[in-house]
Amino acid sequence: MLSTLTEDGDAILILDQTLLPQDAVQRRLATLGDAAHAIRSMQVRGAPLIGVTAAYGVALALLASADDAALEQALATLVATRPTAVNLHWALARMRAALLPLAPELRLAAAWREARAIASEDVAANAAIGRHGLPLLEKIAAGRGRVEVMTHCNAGRLATVANGTALAPVYAAHHAGIAVHVWVSETRPRNQGLLTVWELAEAGMAHTLVADNAAGWLINQGKVGIVIVGADRIAANGDTANKIRTYLKALAARQHDTPFYVAAPLSTVDFNCPNGDGIPIEERDGAELGAGDTPVANPAFDVTPARLITGIITEHGITDPAALSNELSHER
Amino acid sequence: MLSTLTEDGDAILILDQTLLPQDAVQRRLATLGDAAHAIRSMQVRGAPLIGVTAAYGVALALLASADDAALEQALATLVATRPTAVNLHWALARMRAALLPLAPELRLAAAWREARAIASEDVAANAAIGRHGLPLLEKIAAGRGRVEVMTHCNAGRLATVANGTALAPVYAAHHAGIAVHVWVSETRPRNQGLLTVWELAEAGMAHTLVADNAAGWLINQGKVGIVIVGADRIAANGDTANKIRTYLKALAARQHDTPFYVAAPLSTVDFNCPNGDGIPIEERDGAELGAGDTPVANPAFDVTPARLITGIITEHGITDPAALSNELSHER
Repeated sequence: MLSTLTEDGDAILILDQTLLPQDAVQRRLATLGDAAHAIRSMQVRGAPLIGVTAAYGVALALLASADDAALEQALATLVATRPTAVNLHWALARMRAALLPLAPELRLAAAWREARAIASEDVAANAAIGRHGLPLLEKIAAGRGRVEVMTHCNAGRLATVANGTALAPVYAAHHAGIAVHVWVSETRPRNQGLLTVWELAEAGMAHTLVADNAAGWLINQGKVGIVIVGADRIAANGDTANKIRTYLKALAARQHDTPFYVAAPLSTVDFNCPNGDGIPIEERDGAELGAGDTPVANPAFDVTPARLITGIITEHGITDPAALSNELSHER
Repeated sequence: MLSTLTEDGDAILILDQTLLPQDAVQRRLATLGDAAHAIRSMQVRGAPLIGVTAAYGVALALLASADDAALEQALATLVATRPTAVNLHWALARMRAALLPLAPELRLAAAWREARAIASEDVAANAAIGRHGLPLLEKIAAGRGRVEVMTHCNAGRLATVANGTALAPVYAAHHAGIAVHVWVSETRPRNQGLLTVWELAEAGMAHTLVADNAAGWLINQGKVGIVIVGADRIAANGDTANKIRTYLKALAARQHDTPFYVAAPLSTVDFNCPNGDGIPIEERDGAELGAGDTPVANPAFDVTPARLITGIITEHGITDPAALSNELSHER
């Protein structure tokens, strides 16, 4: 199993997700420019993995120069790569807070240490999300004998350093011997559902691919026991930005009394953003739809209102979206 | 402008929609087998056009033999091509009723006459749908200065002999000088949205292509003034089967108080089917998703409950879905 991101001397190795599922190729990132390009071009994607890659990007930048100007420029370059995932801002703010007070000659080693800490905390947070989410799946399996999970996009191990977010409880259930099956949506236009198919197949887990259009119908037909999605930014009131169309899955789930959970580490919560209206929505290149010179609109995310979310699974447990700020803001 | 279907001596010419939007190629159908294959392989698609092609398919079959057995076999072959579009059943039942009482030697000419009648009634019915739907768009344009229409799949001229169903009011508005813009969803897995792009571009009408996933968000953001979709089968209570995901568009429209209309000729209403549960949903080949040997589910339609439908536009006017049977069953 190739890691999504590992250190390699003075560089990092990433699994190039633009080549999956056809080819599993590692790419070596040795400079700030490499890291920024990898995030922007979605060689790495998924909010947690974007945050970790950006943290290492700062370390790579400091290889060339570690003075204040170089540090600030690295932070500015990296923060501009993608607008919606708040983990990017969070990781860079953390790097800045750790490094700026230090003398320049101490920063490089500290940057690698801090990036490494962010990476291992991601692994641990996602494992905890798996543990906290597992009882939800156990309960459904106790009633039905098996669990049909619907997710969206890829919020599995490929979106993180390890374990995944939305898929963490699914992996935990599989390891606990529960019969679990995952409905995977293609997730046009970039087809990250095929990444989910790839990692579930690698893990030997049952899954079925459907066109994005089929999701509502599967929920309507009672073929989904629980929906679990990841998040790119969760506002303080629980409104959640995630891959475009998450909102409609939540609407369909509510319509059919199907539980709808968001799974994300606390680094995905933006306590400074009061509600979903404040979350910037990335508009990506229309060329992603591959329709030549046809006029195209291509928003990459949408916002699911908190009222449609049954619970938010973080490394601290399951939280009512309405209670997010009260219960968890002190953890940050 | 190439017609979707025209007579050509003892055969018919169809526009092969599997080659659009890349190539506009006419294909000559000369036998029952040609017609059945054209419907099954979706060289012709769209409920009204399927019905008309099937009617001509009976005429083509009778070229070889017009006895009772040959007629019944033609009807049986054609009815088995696609399960959901009721226009197919309707057109074949009408052909059977017109031909079976006749002496075999009279059937061939009668079959061409009846198929021709079905085709020209389709043109007229869709033109009437355009006239009846126009005031809805005029009203929105009077308030906003322009109309943003969302549709799904292709329910334009390509789905009919001419004029389209869902797009008929849109064409009528355009011809009336109203500024109209159409949001077109890709409509995975077969991308019939690209057919809609093609015909709107051909007509010089403003449109923007989006991934299917973006539809809910556009409605949420107030960028849609009205949703108009076609139908493959409307049950007696107004529940409507249409291309998969129509249901979620209806749900999003209701959530945001956006009017949601179904436009279809009366031949799409199945008064023998009490509600949506009775509508067979076609499951198509998983290979349409192009994901190799990945397990795939590929339902082609879903059912939108009548309560989410603002009105049904037929050639007889706009009907409340709940009043469909009372108001229109006598018209058939």
